[in-house]
Amino acid sequence: MPQVGKEAQNLLKHWRDTVPNDRIAHLIRDVARAQMKALQHHLLAHGVSFGHWTFLRILWIHDGLTQKELSDLAGVMEPTTFTAVKAMESMGLIERKQLPGNRKNIHVFLTSAGKKLEKKLVPLAEEVNQMSIEGIAAKDVAIMRQSLLKIIENLAVAEASS
Amino acid sequence: MPQVGKEAQNLLKHWRDTVPNDRIAHLIRDVARAQMKALQHHLLAHGVSFGHWTFLRILWIHDGLTQKELSDLAGVMEPTTFTAVKAMESMGLIERKQLPGNRKNIHVFLTSAGKKLEKKLVPLAEEVNQMSIEGIAAKDVAIMRQSLLKIIENLAVAEASS
Repeated sequence: MPQVGKEAQNLLKHWRDTVPNDRIAHLIRDVARAQMKALQHHLLAHGVSFGHWTFLRILWIHDGLTQKELSDLAGVMEPTTFTAVKAMESMGLIERKQLPGNRKNIHVFLTSAGKKLEKKLVPLAEEVNQMSIEGIAAKDVAIMRQSLLKIIENLAVAEASS
Repeated sequence: MPQVGKEAQNLLKHWRDTVPNDRIAHLIRDVARAQMKALQHHLLAHGVSFGHWTFLRILWIHDGLTQKELSDLAGVMEPTTFTAVKAMESMGLIERKQLPGNRKNIHVFLTSAGKKLEKKLVPLAEEVNQMSIEGIAAKDVAIMRQSLLKIIENLAVAEASS
C-alpha cells in the first residue's frame, strides 16, 4: 500500500487494531468523514467548497426553494444557509429573488452557471463513490444500502416516539 | 408509524421516493447525521454536547494526549480542540498539564469526574446503536461493517496515491 496520511493511518489503526468492534454508529461517522474529505479534495480543484456542493446538490433537484426550505433539506441552521447563499450569489452560481405576492420569502434560483456545474461536479462525486466501493461485491453493497435505509427508518421512529 | 419530525420526513421521502438510488456516500452521510442527532439528544439530557462527547470518547481510550494528538484523532482543527478543551476544563471534566522536560506540549488528562462520565454516557451511545440496527439481521450488520471498513481502506489508498 502506498504511504497513507496521518489521519487515514489513525483511522485504519483504530478499526483494524485498537477497537475493531467499536460501535457501528462510530464507524459510519468515520466513513462519512473520509468520503467527505475525498470529495472535498476533488471539489476544491474546481473552486467549489463542500458546503456549496451540499446546497447545489439540493438546488439541482429543487430549484427555486426558499432559504428556509433549503436549510431544512440541508439539515443546517438558516444563518449557515444565508452565508453560503450570499457567497454563491457573488460567485454567480445562484440568484436570490422574491416572488410576486409574497415579499417575505427569499427564493434561491440557480443561474445558468450554477446549472452547468452539475455536469462537471456530479461525475466527481460518482468517482469518489465508485472508488469507495471498489472490491465490494454488488450484493454486499445492496445489503449495506438496505441496512442503512433501515437505520434511518429506525431513528425516525425512535425520534417520533421520544 | 408515529408522527415523525420534518427533517426525518424529508430524509425518508428522499430515500424512499425522490432519489432512492442516490449515491451511497450521500446515504452514509445522512445516516451519520441522523445517528449524531439521536445521540446528541440523549447526551444533552446529561449536559454534554456532541463535541465534548467526541473528545471524551478519545480520552477514555488514550488519556493524557497532547492537544495536537487529540485534534488529529478527532479529525478537527486545533482551535476547535482548544475551545472544547477549555470549556471541558471549566466543567471540571479534564485538566491541562505540561509534563516535566517538555514545556511546549499541553497534555489533556481526564479528572475523576471526566472518567466517571464514561459509565454514564457510553450506555447512551450503545442504546442509540442498538436502536439503529433493530430488525437488521446480524449477518447483514456484519456485511455492512466489513463493507464500511473496506470503504475506509479504499479511500486511504486513493488519498495516498493522489
